[in-house]
Amino acid sequence: MNTICAIATPPGGAIGIVRISGPDAIGIADEVFRTKGSKSLGERKTGTIAFGTIEADGSVLDEVLVSIFRAPHSYTGEDSVEIACHGSPYILNKVVQLLTTHGCRMAEPGEYTQRAFLNGKMDLSQAEAVADLIASGSAASHRIAINQMRGGISHRLGELRNKLLQLTSLLELELDFSEEDIEFADRSQLLTLAEDTAAEISRLTATFADGNALRNGVPVAIVGAPNVGKSTLLNALLRDDKAIVSPVSGTTRDTIEDTVTLGGILFRFIDTAGLRHTTDTIEQMGIERAKQAASRARIIIMMTEPGVPYPEINAVDGQTIIKIVNKTPEFQAINGTGLPQLERQLVAAVPQVGSDTVLITNVRHKQALDLAHADIQRAIASLRNDASGDLVAEDLRQCLAHLAEIVGEISDTAILENIFKNFCIGK
Amino acid sequence: MNTICAIATPPGGAIGIVRISGPDAIGIADEVFRTKGSKSLGERKTGTIAFGTIEADGSVLDEVLVSIFRAPHSYTGEDSVEIACHGSPYILNKVVQLLTTHGCRMAEPGEYTQRAFLNGKMDLSQAEAVADLIASGSAASHRIAINQMRGGISHRLGELRNKLLQLTSLLELELDFSEEDIEFADRSQLLTLAEDTAAEISRLTATFADGNALRNGVPVAIVGAPNVGKSTLLNALLRDDKAIVSPVSGTTRDTIEDTVTLGGILFRFIDTAGLRHTTDTIEQMGIERAKQAASRARIIIMMTEPGVPYPEINAVDGQTIIKIVNKTPEFQAINGTGLPQLERQLVAAVPQVGSDTVLITNVRHKQALDLAHADIQRAIASLRNDASGDLVAEDLRQCLAHLAEIVGEISDTAILENIFKNFCIGK
Repeated sequence: MNTICAIATPPGGAIGIVRISGPDAIGIADEVFRTKGSKSLGERKTGTIAFGTIEADGSVLDEVLVSIFRAPHSYTGEDSVEIACHGSPYILNKVVQLLTTHGCRMAEPGEYTQRAFLNGKMDLSQAEAVADLIASGSAASHRIAINQMRGGISHRLGELRNKLLQLTSLLELELDFSEEDIEFADRSQLLTLAEDTAAEISRLTATFADGNALRNGVPVAIVGAPNVGKSTLLNALLRDDKAIVSPVSGTTRDTIEDTVTLGGILFRFIDTAGLRHTTDTIEQMGIERAKQAASRARIIIMMTEPGVPYPEINAVDGQTIIKIVNKTPEFQAINGTGLPQLERQLVAAVPQVGSDTVLITNVRHKQALDLAHADIQRAIASLRNDASGDLVAEDLRQCLAHLAEIVGEISDTAILENIFKNFCIGK
Repeated sequence: MNTICAIATPPGGAIGIVRISGPDAIGIADEVFRTKGSKSLGERKTGTIAFGTIEADGSVLDEVLVSIFRAPHSYTGEDSVEIACHGSPYILNKVVQLLTTHGCRMAEPGEYTQRAFLNGKMDLSQAEAVADLIASGSAASHRIAINQMRGGISHRLGELRNKLLQLTSLLELELDFSEEDIEFADRSQLLTLAEDTAAEISRLTATFADGNALRNGVPVAIVGAPNVGKSTLLNALLRDDKAIVSPVSGTTRDTIEDTVTLGGILFRFIDTAGLRHTTDTIEQMGIERAKQAASRARIIIMMTEPGVPYPEINAVDGQTIIKIVNKTPEFQAINGTGLPQLERQLVAAVPQVGSDTVLITNVRHKQALDLAHADIQRAIASLRNDASGDLVAEDLRQCLAHLAEIVGEISDTAILENIFKNFCIGK
């Protein structure tokens, strides 16, 4: 295993950190670090910090603090060193250059977390959550990521896998006695257990819509007839002037969207062209896009004003509709009257994320769950058709394998590399 | 003294650091930090790291490493804690919010270094070098900053102040015996010592031109007749296409400048309008600016081509002139022929910065040295005029006070605040 190094902080701060991990981490650090008359890094205990200098080309490059972590008591599970320098890009790049001349290799994106995974410090769903945690910008997406990093999904999948193992062992008991032509396992009991498992996989899969929305921004389409104040409402919600507001009907011809965090939840607001009958082809295209945006939204704000009918939009499954009559004493987008009430409605339309909420946010997990669900459905069909135990067992094994992929039983290194390549360098 | 906190790393990295410093640093950190069944932070030794979680609103905000530094064994000299979180701006801001609700105050820019100065961990010239070190982007500016941070200027000033104290004590001996009308101190000896000191202050002040150039970029003006290839040379040196190059005479009407690091030194190249007699008023203004740029440059590249005379520019004191005949077998800006040789000439024209080089880069230091020089010149004049020892002693005291200002004997807090306000937050 190589010893790797990378700058783990962005350029331009007070402090910059260089991370080293691998079998030679402490030895290499000792070669470039000088400290006054006290112990070398190799003689220091794990979890301790040494003050000294980094020397390059015979002169002092920086005064630094060096933290020592001995395997397995480190993030990666390997011997690791963190060098805290002054946050100068010049210094940080020089330190990394110096370390590479002493035998370190530059780390790939996510390689520290990949090593943590490979060394059993976390499973794959936890490792993936690290990148989500760093990227999370709202209370809800943060909560989802930290729950996943601390093993929320792993725990839920563990329960599912236990159920499947129970099923499998009951079936294997039957198979062991198959020559004697005895149906050992109670097929109806097996069926109930399989159906329970299928339902649980479904429930978990169903969280993806919310999980994905909370992670990337809950899509909210603002629809209505022209000139009822949709762009004014968008501006009020975003608290800036991104949409062009004018009293000429049909000003918004494209969909305009932007995000804002309300009540700890990231919302992605989509302003759309006014819905009306028109012969203007460009405006017609805008209206078509407005309808598409509405169909993909999680929440639709249907907006109108006194004397104008509500737009003809039908909610699809899982969509929440919020109706607003603008330009009334209760609601005036132009000056914010009624806005706090609308914001509360928006927040209430989205599920609360508690400290034990498990939501699927990752497309890879969703795909694996879909495959596992197909497997268990096949097993259920076989059980119903009194198919042989062998057939059922094979489907259950497939189902288990698909669930196992989520937490990391992946043999394909290309898939693994693909997972970690979207991480930042230094993590 | 308040306990202060700040994020010490820029947003968007793998790791983010929150720094806490002040009498309650460890106690406040203990209130938000949970670790499994082991010692509280208050029971831990200085220079050790604890793994655990930060809790906010009853749930886990992040898994973190907490480093403990007990006074005086910290950067500020106070009790200090560094919390290493995942580098999510959401998490880092939440941690700081949490700390402020537990009694921390948000740190001002440079406040950690200011406290280090106030607690005697470094003098003022060293403290100022911390900001320079973080900002330095070339080997030379880095070397100057680290030499200053490690006490280079302080040491040199220490020697000067010793000389002045020696002078003063000789004078005071004279003053003690003044009633007896004995000239105790040998005035010619005093004069020699004072002149030596003045010369040393001059030498130090004279380093400001180079120090300032190396810190901010050594100005190099490229001058010559129109169309000899000045913009082509600038592009070749900058390795991009910033200047507009065309075969029409007088294309460059304004001065164009950009920086590039060669041989570890930052150069600031200034392309100028072609020098020729012209009736075009706008072009005349460009030529006037070209002459001004040349007069301010540290190095002038005088460029010509066969058959065209060199421009009429006279070097001022301290300027280096490099002459180039473009469009010859030896030098062709268009394809880079002769460029490495020119780059070596540029690097050679600038003094080398070694690990013990002391250069003045700071305007505040330059001004204090100028004042100190005026003081010692007055003292010398008084000594030459056989003025009373009282008068000479007063000038020497002033001189000492001005030198002391550089390393930090400053009573005016407004000046101090002004020095640190240009630091980044968290340092």
